[in-house]
Amino acid sequence: MSKTDPIRPTDDDARSLAKKLIAEARHGAIAVLMDGKPFVSRIALAPTDNGLLTLISDLSPHTAALRAEPNASLLIGEPGKGDPLAHPRITVEVAATFREKSEETAHAYLAYQPKAQLYIGFGDFHLVELAPMSASLNGGFGKAYALTRDDLA
Amino acid sequence: MSKTDPIRPTDDDARSLAKKLIAEARHGAIAVLMDGKPFVSRIALAPTDNGLLTLISDLSPHTAALRAEPNASLLIGEPGKGDPLAHPRITVEVAATFREKSEETAHAYLAYQPKAQLYIGFGDFHLVELAPMSASLNGGFGKAYALTRDDLA
Repeated sequence: MSKTDPIRPTDDDARSLAKKLIAEARHGAIAVLMDGKPFVSRIALAPTDNGLLTLISDLSPHTAALRAEPNASLLIGEPGKGDPLAHPRITVEVAATFREKSEETAHAYLAYQPKAQLYIGFGDFHLVELAPMSASLNGGFGKAYALTRDDLA
Repeated sequence: MSKTDPIRPTDDDARSLAKKLIAEARHGAIAVLMDGKPFVSRIALAPTDNGLLTLISDLSPHTAALRAEPNASLLIGEPGKGDPLAHPRITVEVAATFREKSEETAHAYLAYQPKAQLYIGFGDFHLVELAPMSASLNGGFGKAYALTRDDLA
């Protein structure tokens, strides 16, 4: 909490924590650009080899926003008891790609989000892959790191 | 989940749920504009008569972003078990005002965030009031509402 650079040099512990937070995330807060303004909403998540998969509906405003501007910011990592800022979280800059809703991608998503079976077949729901491009990891007070795409791979 | 307008007419139940989510929030995901791009991060929250109070540090990138552009988007409401999208949450468009760190405002914040006593006195930490301007309430599937500032007052 000094006035010096708050970003620590990235080490293996930081890379491991970042990858763990991403792999274990089942939901996150995605910030998109909407009419030039930030808009944040919840999405459900499943891990893939290349990042994360989400299932979003045309009825949700983030879906059109991601079609127009696929670069978004995703907050992952849930606080536990006590000070909400003492718990690790990561802001991941992601690039969104709308995927074909094949049996394979649907299966990969449902393995982690079984309740989505109820609506994954609906025509207005889309599977979107979120590829991490960079990230800001906050491991708790005084533990901030800037991670590259390679750090997250 | 039909193709018709997904937004329901706002009723007293929607207003009550929105106010409850805001009043009970102790943390949220705030999306700010940073170099023209959305950036989302976690902040701690305490309720006030006019909205919410947060305590943010100059070491966190959202602080400079809020000074440059005080309009931000705040996601509130935590998921429980099962489908993360079945739980109520609200996206609140907020206007940020940096407040003087008086004994009164500090006391109001610490009443809900007692652990912040450790750092609230530091010069690079600032109390910021977030006033709700409008909101998108999602009470679970098929329960979307658009709320005005008056609905949230």
